[in-house]
Amino acid sequence: MRALILHANKFATKVVKKSNKPGNIVSEKVNEFENEMDECIVAFFTVEKPDSENEIEKLYNEIIKASNETDTKNIMISPFVHLSNNIAEPKKAIQFYENIMSKFKNTNYIVNSSPFGYHKSLLLDIKGHPTSFRYREFNNDR
Amino acid sequence: MRALILHANKFATKVVKKSNKPGNIVSEKVNEFENEMDECIVAFFTVEKPDSENEIEKLYNEIIKASNETDTKNIMISPFVHLSNNIAEPKKAIQFYENIMSKFKNTNYIVNSSPFGYHKSLLLDIKGHPTSFRYREFNNDR
Repeated sequence: MRALILHANKFATKVVKKSNKPGNIVSEKVNEFENEMDECIVAFFTVEKPDSENEIEKLYNEIIKASNETDTKNIMISPFVHLSNNIAEPKKAIQFYENIMSKFKNTNYIVNSSPFGYHKSLLLDIKGHPTSFRYREFNNDR
Repeated sequence: MRALILHANKFATKVVKKSNKPGNIVSEKVNEFENEMDECIVAFFTVEKPDSENEIEKLYNEIIKASNETDTKNIMISPFVHLSNNIAEPKKAIQFYENIMSKFKNTNYIVNSSPFGYHKSLLLDIKGHPTSFRYREFNNDR
C-alpha cells in the first residue's frame, strides 16, 4: 500500500463519470456527487496486490499521527489508483477502503470520503509547512 | 523515476521556506516565490537512486504525449520528493531537473517550473476526464 497524506486548507471533488478500468470495477453507490472539506488531513491511498489487512492498520495509524501532529480532526479518505503500477483487484481495493472507513466509526474524527470507482475532478489547496506532505509505503515486511 | 502527470485547470505554488532535509540539499536560487499556470500539464516527478539519464528522456516523452493528447501547450515541471522512498541524492535530483528543463528549450511549449528545494504550498485544480491523472514508473529495464 502506498499513501500520500496531506494537510490541506481545502479538498473538493466532483464525480465526472464512472471508471470502466479495470473491466471488473464496480463503482460505489453514491448520493453525493460533490464532496468538499476544509482544514483537513487528506489521505490518498493505493491498495497493492500483496497487501494484507495489516496495511489498513498502518494507514490508519499514519492518518491519526498526521491528525494529532497538526491538530486537525477533519479527515478526507480518498481511494486513489495513481500511486503504484501494482494495484490490487478492484474488489480487494474497495474492501480495504470500506475497512479503513469502518475504523473511524465511533471515533471523534469528522470523516468524509471521495467515492470509489469514478473519474473525478479534484481541487486541492495544500498548506506548505514541512509536514504537510507525507509519502508512505506500507508493506508486509516493514 | 516516478511521475504523476496531471491535466489541470490551475496550478499555483508559493515558497514557504527552504528544505533542510536531506542535510546536503541546496535550494535552487529563485527570484519568483510564487508560480502559477492555468490550463496546463503538471508533471510531478521523483528522481530515484537507480535512475540514469534514460529516465529523463522517458519522462519528457510522457509529458509530450500528455500535452499532445490534451492539446495543451502549457507545461508546469514540478520536482517532487513524495512519490518514492528510494529518492536520489539532492545533487542528482537537481541535475535531472535541470536536464528535463533544458529539453524544452527551443521548443514551442510554454514551460514554467516549481522551485527545487523548498517547502511550498500547492493549489491544484485538476480536470476529471479519464486521462487527467497519469501515474508512471520509469526504470532502466523498462
